[in-house]
Amino acid sequence: MIMLAEDDVLYQICEGEEGLLNVMQEGAIHISMSTISPDTSRDLSEKHRHKNQHYLSSPVFGRPNAAAEAKLYICTSGEDTIKQKVKSILELLGQAVYDFGTDPGAANVVKLAGNFMIMASMETMAEAFTLAEKQGLDREQVANFFGETVFNAPIYKNYGTLIAKKQYQPVGFKSSLGFKDARLASKMALDAEMPAPLLSLVYNRLLSALAKGNNDSDWVEGIAGGVSNDAGI
Amino acid sequence: MIMLAEDDVLYQICEGEEGLLNVMQEGAIHISMSTISPDTSRDLSEKHRHKNQHYLSSPVFGRPNAAAEAKLYICTSGEDTIKQKVKSILELLGQAVYDFGTDPGAANVVKLAGNFMIMASMETMAEAFTLAEKQGLDREQVANFFGETVFNAPIYKNYGTLIAKKQYQPVGFKSSLGFKDARLASKMALDAEMPAPLLSLVYNRLLSALAKGNNDSDWVEGIAGGVSNDAGI
Repeated sequence: MIMLAEDDVLYQICEGEEGLLNVMQEGAIHISMSTISPDTSRDLSEKHRHKNQHYLSSPVFGRPNAAAEAKLYICTSGEDTIKQKVKSILELLGQAVYDFGTDPGAANVVKLAGNFMIMASMETMAEAFTLAEKQGLDREQVANFFGETVFNAPIYKNYGTLIAKKQYQPVGFKSSLGFKDARLASKMALDAEMPAPLLSLVYNRLLSALAKGNNDSDWVEGIAGGVSNDAGI
Repeated sequence: MIMLAEDDVLYQICEGEEGLLNVMQEGAIHISMSTISPDTSRDLSEKHRHKNQHYLSSPVFGRPNAAAEAKLYICTSGEDTIKQKVKSILELLGQAVYDFGTDPGAANVVKLAGNFMIMASMETMAEAFTLAEKQGLDREQVANFFGETVFNAPIYKNYGTLIAKKQYQPVGFKSSLGFKDARLASKMALDAEMPAPLLSLVYNRLLSALAKGNNDSDWVEGIAGGVSNDAGI
């Protein structure tokens, strides 16, 4: 069961003389929880198959506190027999498991699409709350209203409070990792010849955070701090 | 109690010889549920005050079916004594009333910010689902996953289903009205010297719908149809 930050790092663990592909027993299963490109999953799945090993994509949604409370949402895709074998393990770790079929890359597509949606919701809230602030309203009151009514989802409640308070510490997820996900999603869009202007917007927000040396800032700061900064507040 | 589509139309009802300002009794209350510019609310509030009448901003969130079921969310701002007087009426109409203070424009700021957030969430979902579709995933399955997990808010569930199915009939809210709200929000941003690139994006999506003669299409089609169209699907 592997959860690493980057495609390259995962390849380093899998390949080479002491890599997983060489040292795992036949029939063993690599449960891949990393947020990586769907093409990386497809490639590693194939490589494990050639060694008579198995690969199951299982990326998760949830910050560290959700993991500690076994409240992750887990997405799977890959061989159906393998899903059955590891079902009980995944159900222990998460509050629910959602399957997306046999293409090993499918769960990674959902994960990258989801992280894009989270970044887009941060940009959305940051612009809305800044608009309200400029009109003399209290950002937190506005955030609470939306979090309790039409946008009463965890993402809007949790990130909404941070964005309203401009509270960017402690760092939960780095801008550099958010950018990596925006880059992987943008690569999918480019390969598919799909213009995605909102994806490009959050990509550029985080690229700008990196350009300013803020790789280790929270991705909320990378995006919402950019909106405030543009507005001179 | 007035709910009209545009600032200009509301002014027509309020001004002139047979307008509300001339015909309402002293002490009477104009409960203004229209989605209008905060400056219009501030101006009309002042004009009613000069006639010893009252004006209360009370814009609502909810599509017609929510209104029929008394499940609207109502935002108020204006004179506190007037809010107390009409409290029982508003509570009959909505499931909850949220107050934003004494500035008559404040509730309109929240309403316009909220409609921007709804349009932004449509753009978000449309890009995410199109990305997934291009990778061979089922749009509805992806929409259901997000609507049941990290984005389990009414907006994502209801619009998510429509966007996943590309179901743009029957028309619930016209692109022309969505554009009007994007225009009013953009005017606020401009007046406040606040760049708001995501607001500009949805503004341009709906402006393009208007340019193509699709004023009467649903705003979901104006936005999500634009994303599909850009992607050649």
